[in-house]
Amino acid sequence: LCMVESVDRIKTRTRSPLSEAESKSLLAGYGVPVVREAVAMHEDEAVALSESIGFPVVLKGVGKNIAHKTERGLVKVNLKSSEEVLNSFRTLKEAGGDDWEECLVQPFIQGRREFVAGLARDPQFGPVVMFGLGGIFTEAIGDVVFRIAPLNESDARDMIGELASRTLLGAFRGEAAADTGRLVRVLTGLSRLGLERPDIEEVDINPMIVGPDGGVTAVDALVVLGSGEGKTATPDEKNVSETTEEINAAIEIMTHPKSVAVMGVTRTPGDGFPGMYACIRNFGYPGRLYPVNPKADEIDGVKAYPDLVSLPEQVDLVVISVPAPLVPDALRDCIVSGNKNIHIFTSGFKETGEEAGLKLHAEIEKIAREGGLRVVGPNCMGFYVPASRMLTWTEASTESGPVSFISQSGGNAQDFTSYASSRLGIHFSKVISYGNALALDSTDFLEYLARDDETRIIAMYLEGVKDGRKLFDLISGINLKKPVIVMKGGLSESGARAVASHTGSMAGAEKIWRAFFRQTGAVRVDSLEEMAEVAKAFIHFRKCGGRRAVILGTGGGVGVAAADSCAKAGLELPVLPPDLLEQLREFIPPAGNMITNPIDAHLVLLDHKVFAHTLDILSGTPYLDMLIISLHLDWLRSREQGTLIEKIGRFIVDEARRHTNGKPLVVVVRQYQPNPQTKECRSGLEEILLKGGVPAYESLQKAVFALSKLAAYHAFIAAR
Amino acid sequence: LCMVESVDRIKTRTRSPLSEAESKSLLAGYGVPVVREAVAMHEDEAVALSESIGFPVVLKGVGKNIAHKTERGLVKVNLKSSEEVLNSFRTLKEAGGDDWEECLVQPFIQGRREFVAGLARDPQFGPVVMFGLGGIFTEAIGDVVFRIAPLNESDARDMIGELASRTLLGAFRGEAAADTGRLVRVLTGLSRLGLERPDIEEVDINPMIVGPDGGVTAVDALVVLGSGEGKTATPDEKNVSETTEEINAAIEIMTHPKSVAVMGVTRTPGDGFPGMYACIRNFGYPGRLYPVNPKADEIDGVKAYPDLVSLPEQVDLVVISVPAPLVPDALRDCIVSGNKNIHIFTSGFKETGEEAGLKLHAEIEKIAREGGLRVVGPNCMGFYVPASRMLTWTEASTESGPVSFISQSGGNAQDFTSYASSRLGIHFSKVISYGNALALDSTDFLEYLARDDETRIIAMYLEGVKDGRKLFDLISGINLKKPVIVMKGGLSESGARAVASHTGSMAGAEKIWRAFFRQTGAVRVDSLEEMAEVAKAFIHFRKCGGRRAVILGTGGGVGVAAADSCAKAGLELPVLPPDLLEQLREFIPPAGNMITNPIDAHLVLLDHKVFAHTLDILSGTPYLDMLIISLHLDWLRSREQGTLIEKIGRFIVDEARRHTNGKPLVVVVRQYQPNPQTKECRSGLEEILLKGGVPAYESLQKAVFALSKLAAYHAFIAAR
Repeated sequence: LCMVESVDRIKTRTRSPLSEAESKSLLAGYGVPVVREAVAMHEDEAVALSESIGFPVVLKGVGKNIAHKTERGLVKVNLKSSEEVLNSFRTLKEAGGDDWEECLVQPFIQGRREFVAGLARDPQFGPVVMFGLGGIFTEAIGDVVFRIAPLNESDARDMIGELASRTLLGAFRGEAAADTGRLVRVLTGLSRLGLERPDIEEVDINPMIVGPDGGVTAVDALVVLGSGEGKTATPDEKNVSETTEEINAAIEIMTHPKSVAVMGVTRTPGDGFPGMYACIRNFGYPGRLYPVNPKADEIDGVKAYPDLVSLPEQVDLVVISVPAPLVPDALRDCIVSGNKNIHIFTSGFKETGEEAGLKLHAEIEKIAREGGLRVVGPNCMGFYVPASRMLTWTEASTESGPVSFISQSGGNAQDFTSYASSRLGIHFSKVISYGNALALDSTDFLEYLARDDETRIIAMYLEGVKDGRKLFDLISGINLKKPVIVMKGGLSESGARAVASHTGSMAGAEKIWRAFFRQTGAVRVDSLEEMAEVAKAFIHFRKCGGRRAVILGTGGGVGVAAADSCAKAGLELPVLPPDLLEQLREFIPPAGNMITNPIDAHLVLLDHKVFAHTLDILSGTPYLDMLIISLHLDWLRSREQGTLIEKIGRFIVDEARRHTNGKPLVVVVRQYQPNPQTKECRSGLEEILLKGGVPAYESLQKAVFALSKLAAYHAFIAAR
Repeated sequence: LCMVESVDRIKTRTRSPLSEAESKSLLAGYGVPVVREAVAMHEDEAVALSESIGFPVVLKGVGKNIAHKTERGLVKVNLKSSEEVLNSFRTLKEAGGDDWEECLVQPFIQGRREFVAGLARDPQFGPVVMFGLGGIFTEAIGDVVFRIAPLNESDARDMIGELASRTLLGAFRGEAAADTGRLVRVLTGLSRLGLERPDIEEVDINPMIVGPDGGVTAVDALVVLGSGEGKTATPDEKNVSETTEEINAAIEIMTHPKSVAVMGVTRTPGDGFPGMYACIRNFGYPGRLYPVNPKADEIDGVKAYPDLVSLPEQVDLVVISVPAPLVPDALRDCIVSGNKNIHIFTSGFKETGEEAGLKLHAEIEKIAREGGLRVVGPNCMGFYVPASRMLTWTEASTESGPVSFISQSGGNAQDFTSYASSRLGIHFSKVISYGNALALDSTDFLEYLARDDETRIIAMYLEGVKDGRKLFDLISGINLKKPVIVMKGGLSESGARAVASHTGSMAGAEKIWRAFFRQTGAVRVDSLEEMAEVAKAFIHFRKCGGRRAVILGTGGGVGVAAADSCAKAGLELPVLPPDLLEQLREFIPPAGNMITNPIDAHLVLLDHKVFAHTLDILSGTPYLDMLIISLHLDWLRSREQGTLIEKIGRFIVDEARRHTNGKPLVVVVRQYQPNPQTKECRSGLEEILLKGGVPAYESLQKAVFALSKLAAYHAFIAAR
């Protein structure tokens, strides 16, 4: 038995499928256990080969013009005798007609468990490896998972474990567990292939059969060659030719500018938006701020300059807000005057999708590249850095905090920071809205924030990504030190792609981004609200040992909802072990105090000594990882003439945190009635908790969601 | 060829699996296309039968002590000659040993598409029919759907269409589309079987093979007999022996009582909760209210009575809030005094799960049944009927509205009504919290509300259900006339059950309740917030023609989020057709006005003539079904010195609704900045919209979710 073609021959072809034999030969070199097979040109040869292989065998009629062998009746399986082989050979030859070139003889691999493995090239991330349920039902069932190459063994194992039908890989109905080591080698081999052979566009191994003994055999395989260009995540040509260090230094200057020039300042605010100049000034910017307007001598009592060349100095940042058609000239002014740090607020370029905009975009891109300009934008809101008193939109908190936010959308930059700071007390270090990413991209800001000591948590809102591979590599590294919380918009709009393989057809954006999050450990959120709630948990807790929560609360009806919420988010709400129960029962009497999980115990809230003791016991046990206090304010308000709520709040802030044993503790504030006194109590409590640094959530679902993300992040870190 | 056993013999067995032949014989009578098969006791017989059936055949070794034939090597498939049959017969007989009784000979049914159909008995809903992807992977993949019997043809078709792998039933890889008519007959046949044969516990038809010609054949089948009792949704013995009309009349009296007695009134409110008597009085109850307390002569200046017998009249409602151990005596007092309408507020019964509570529960259940008492509760909050000024908790709106709410949880009854009325302007007709359902259950209240002219929409919060079948039947009928919105708590806690079949093992609570919603058309929500948001849409819109939305808004960043939200909720956000675009472009200039979907057009908001004209065009086209106006207040506030927002609100209320062509129109109010003036604008706008009867949502996601439920409901109604 011999492998029919050498790998060298394969290289000479482009953009076409390899033959089955070629495909298998290539894959065998990357650790794929392909079925033995041999070529028979004549019927006698087929019989001899079958006898040498051992019955039962499979016979396939092949030829370079033959696709869909099964549909054409060119596959005969389970041939048990020389006679059957002889008859089948004749039948296949006849059925293949002029297309028939030869027959392949293989042992008949029996096994009911069919899987698929493959390789595709994602336009943003390059080579991606697939594994899933195979056979003819791959697309119909869709139980496949992806990983972005390169994969190590642990990635491959995680990948296998993510499959819904993974139970089939264990001991199953009298058959042995699959040889997982072999599966891992197939997946890491495909990863290697994807990186080493950019000329290979797609690979499909389907079915890969798991036999009754657990052995793994690739029965069919398809390898498609491509041009080796374009789709291997080659990013757009880089628009800034500087080193990372130079770009970092420039962003540091832009976020802490000592001088700013604004081009396009008008005297009268047009439609209500006060303009970039007024935004910066109104926020209390303490540096030198120059209005630039060729038609005015002064703006609001400040001397105006006709152009950048006339300024008394080169500035740390130029903000361009002139109409789109005037942006090319403004950029030329930047070059002439030696100003390189630029934020273009103006829109009307690529994002319009219209001809005029696209043309203008190409023009400013050329000017910026040739001039070596470090452009943020266009079509973006720019910067918000409270410590620098720098803001290029209308309103934001002046307080600084540990979160930095990179947002492709200007609207989301404003909305998220407003929402997070005013409603959840989350404050920011640097916020950058970068729009069309003409020169500087999300990855540039990410590298800057990774090294920024003031930034402890990075949040990102992404739509398109210019260089997915770079983003993947960066976040993989940074997330191990600083949590990176990502909202990826636009995943519902996955377009169809023209592909030849199962793997290619399944590689939709949603599945690839799922791999992105799984591999980088970045924290996935699907809305700005979720982003804020999760950030809040990460601000307050730097560790979390697991997913087992205990809820301490009263007010009724919380039990069923708590169980449902935890199950949905993937937290556990374990039954309290008997010894713990006994310990609690020593000082909490049964009347009015149910000790299950959630614990519904009036006494705990009423007597702070009992409260502290309870927390000590709950946080002291290794069976629980996090504590949730659920306060039903409408119910509590009627107690102790309403003073109880404030007392509980002060107790949590002053005392409770000393009794958590370092485990996360959050408060859920439930309040529904319109009663103004209760609302007042609520505001009071929220303020106490906010000032005291205890995160409060307005529903159990939200608290549980945030804690589940915290737990998942720390589990990921711990596993590395 | 003969069917081997008569159906009559089957009946004599109980609680055991029928043989394969018995199973098939029974199922054949219900329209299941079972594979032909014949019994061979001797090898010659096997060969003769095979020749008569036609090769290839299948041989199975069977016997009453043989389970798991395949694992024991007792199945030989694809036998192509008399010789193979002969050899196989001998092998099987030997392999079966003493357990072997006979061989079955069947034609070898070839087909790659394997499905499963079955019947199970749900403890709450009785017979349920399953259909799904079959073969050995049924459990591993879990692509199965259920329906509660009885099924008609249209239910069966809907069921098939719900399957994720339904594409396999179409023309697939050179094979013909499945004979859907036959599949429908199998599913409706199983439904019939489930209803006609309560002695049959489970049925599994797996695999049911769809052949290359689309033909359907049941190759294997298992029928398990049970006791025919208990699990066929026989409800708990009915605790009220009255007719529906009598119960309805009693509930009408209890919700509109002319006189109420409260047992267990203390002078000093204990722990802040003022008690039932004070709750009723404080809400302004206008009827005759009697405090009952054997230890006091007067309560708050009102004459107190020692017991019900001493009252000057029989009352319309007795509210019992004495401690749990005194409840039996209180009920006896009810019987002696001839009072039958009772609400027991007190808790400490079955819900504790403890022995004392269970014993007390049994005691009061006996008293209530023997006395014919119509008990609401125990362990519940009771009634809220604003028109009667009747409230048995501390706080609620006095305004009436079209929604009635039945809640098992007292906490949820209070929380939902408070939240809905104070934050969303939703008002109620009748709210009933019924707790442990000692006598009256959710279904009793449902029947009452179905006939109540003041109730236009019914909302329900359910945990356990006593008589699932009755609930199913009732909601199936009522929902066609009044939307029924249901939140089912506790679905995450589905326990494992001991079952013999695939069908049984897959019949988890989540899957069965999914069928419940699909079949009744009841509107499913997963939180109280969702319930309120959906109710709001149903209050305002009595029809909805489809799922295609257009969004009209400005403020940036809304496009991507809108597409994602709509995709998630199952709404369409269609591209506007060219003729519509042309019509709009006639009066909306391109500058600053993007006409895509969402439409981002400044002019529309600024010029109300343009706004009205735009609405006319959008609502006039048959391509769109609903209109969403998304207002970004932080952005709008800077326009026209903040007066624009109020103007837009007034326009929407006064004018816009005349331009919707009867299609739903909702407003999304987005506002993030802490700016107090903007917040004031927001409150002002929300008030205008609320008073004007235009539903407003605080996020696009929420609006889109509510509208998707509205669209789904009306699509369901239209299909009937």
